[in-house]
Parts: sequence; C-alpha cells; structure tokens
Amino acid sequence: MNKGLLISFEGTDGSGKTTQIKLLSEYMHSKGLNHITLREPGGVAISEEIRSIVLDNRYKEMDQVTEMLLYAAARAQLVSQVIQPSLASGKSVICDRFVDSSYIYQGYARGLGIELVKTVNDVATRNLMPDITFFMDIDPVLALKRRFDNSQPDRLEAEGTAFQKKVYEGYIKLAGLYPDRIKIISGIHGIDAAFSQIKSYVDVLLCR
Amino acid sequence: MNKGLLISFEGTDGSGKTTQIKLLSEYMHSKGLNHITLREPGGVAISEEIRSIVLDNRYKEMDQVTEMLLYAAARAQLVSQVIQPSLASGKSVICDRFVDSSYIYQGYARGLGIELVKTVNDVATRNLMPDITFFMDIDPVLALKRRFDNSQPDRLEAEGTAFQKKVYEGYIKLAGLYPDRIKIISGIHGIDAAFSQIKSYVDVLLCR
Repeated sequence: MNKGLLISFEGTDGSGKTTQIKLLSEYMHSKGLNHITLREPGGVAISEEIRSIVLDNRYKEMDQVTEMLLYAAARAQLVSQVIQPSLASGKSVICDRFVDSSYIYQGYARGLGIELVKTVNDVATRNLMPDITFFMDIDPVLALKRRFDNSQPDRLEAEGTAFQKKVYEGYIKLAGLYPDRIKIISGIHGIDAAFSQIKSYVDVLLCR
Repeated sequence: MNKGLLISFEGTDGSGKTTQIKLLSEYMHSKGLNHITLREPGGVAISEEIRSIVLDNRYKEMDQVTEMLLYAAARAQLVSQVIQPSLASGKSVICDRFVDSSYIYQGYARGLGIELVKTVNDVATRNLMPDITFFMDIDPVLALKRRFDNSQPDRLEAEGTAFQKKVYEGYIKLAGLYPDRIKIISGIHGIDAAFSQIKSYVDVLLCR
C-alpha cells in the first residue's frame, strides 16, 4: 500500500483556496483516490477550540509568540490525530493552510523570523512536510475585498490591507526558497485555468 | 531601580507549594518588597482559557506535543503580559510552576525529552529563567493523597501515582543538573522548617 499524499493550499484570505480544494477533491474522487480535506487551524475538536482562542476578537493583547505557539499546538493535534494516521493508511490529505501559513503570518509578517517559527513547527509536525504546496497568487487587496463582502472580518483580517500585502510578499519569497515544493498558481486567468495547473502537478505526483 | 526577582515553586500536586508561596508573599510584604504571585498555567485571561483546554477531562485524545505547546503558549502570554513588565518595573514575581514543570511533566515523565521541551520554552519565555526555584520535596504518593482529599482530580492528576512518582524522580534529577538555581526544600520537618530554608535563600538574593 502506498502512503497518501499531503497537499497544502496557501494564500491570503479570499484568494480562492476553498474553490480549488473543492475542485481537487472532486477530481481525486472521480479517480477513485481515497482522501480527506482539512482546514487549519482546526479540523478536530481540540484544534477547533484552540482556533477559537486565536481568532477571538476580544484578545487584542495576544502576544505574537503566544499566537505562534497556539497555531503550532492546533497543528500538532491535527497531525497526530488525523494527518499521520491518514497518510499511513494510504489516504491523501488536502490541507487548507499548513506550516507555511505560520512561517509567513507569524515568522515573516509579524517579524518573529521564519527560522524560529520553523524550529517550533518542526516539533509540532514531527518534521512532516507537504509533498506539494499550491500558493494561490491573487492581488491581496482584491482578495481581501472579496472576503469582506462575504462575512465579518476576524481578528487577523481586521488588521487590513498593509498586513495582507506583507503576507503576499512573504509567500512569493518563500516560493522562491522552496521552488520544488511550493507552486505559484496564478489566479488572474480564472478558476478553470488555475485548476488545470494544479491538476497537472498532482497528476505527476500520482504517477510516481 | 533594581530589577525584580523571579522566584518559582515546583513540585508534585499537594506538595505544599501554595502554603509556602503564601508565607513568602507575607514575608516579602512585611519587608516592604513590591511583588505579585501567579499560577501556571493561567494568570491572565488568555492563559486561563488555554489552561481550561489543557486540563479538560474530555480531551483524552490530546497529543503530548499539543499539550506541551499549549503550556508554552500560556507561558508566553504570561511572560510578555505580566512577568517581564513587572520585573522591569522592579516588582518581584512569585510563580506557582514555571518552565521546570514543562521540562519534567512533558519532557521527562511523558518522554518528549527535556532538550526538545527546552527549545520550545526558550522561544516562549524569550530565554527568561527564574533567579531561584524551590522544589518542594515530599513523598509524591502522600502528596497526591492530600490533594485528592481536597478536590476532584483533573485530567493530569487522574493519571495516578506511577506518573507522580516519575515526576518526582525527574525533579530530583533536574535539581542535580541545576544546583545553583534549583533548591530542594524538604517537606518532612513541617511547614515552618521548610519556610526557614526558603527565607534564608531569598534573603541572600535580596542582599545582592
């Protein structure tokens, strides 16, 4: 039995991750490929409860290191309780955000440093990394606008466009550091064009 | 203005930490020494909410790494929001548990390894260590019995005497590694005798 694939989607909020994950899940289903989809932070009861603390608008006083450690704790639970057992049983896992979100949001945009965030997250994931990561490349201000039309902003989103721009810039740099793992998927040619790119990368991995 | 002292108390539950902290606080008050007392995990709103997740009896599935990261997150918030500002303003801080609890409970007793737990906690505390740590040395089974007569056991306490014995053994080893910082305070000669020892150590630090 083959080990499942770990596939993560990254990008600013509103960049189209949810839509592409749905398309990829349908595609894998059509090929009879056993898989699950998860969102981060969250996915299991303990991680969802941690998520509710991190995203709580009341906690303006939350320290950056606390925030980073809470994301890592939620991730540790998801990895040990769901991701590792799924991969081991041959099931693939599609993640809406994974370690790169922490590298970028806490390490880069908030300035804790990517190395420090990586040190903590290597402990949280027991060094598990995605087989492939898709960065949804869309103008971060446009993405934010799309998102705000849909719902009230949470604590992180409320920080506004300057932060989102920094996050976007961080992802582009990170993709440059890990070109074999992180694939930049352009969002400007529409949903179908973006999915074609994603599908072709996944097909290559499935043929291995 | 002098920096305040960071004083931590460690030991198994029921070992007399609370009583000695009360006595030390009264003593420092009588000498006009500005100070606060805190408990870990907890002490501020965010950390208390994290505490409620860690100690929740429903979460039997909690992963050891998740638990360790949650303690570190609660500690990071307490350090940045209360401990660092207090010490900087000349106020001393007396802590009911600090980093050593994580080294011992998660690192030693649960087997994650003290080094790994130290790596994460150095991030959480930004390398802040206590000026002095008192380990309340009392037979761990007796301590557990005392505690259970007072209240219902929480998730960690419910794991029973074998775990408490291992925790005790870990503390003794750790005190051997850091004899300058960690002082073993014998509990078998009664409350007053134990406090005399603590007082003498604190007096030396205050004269520095």
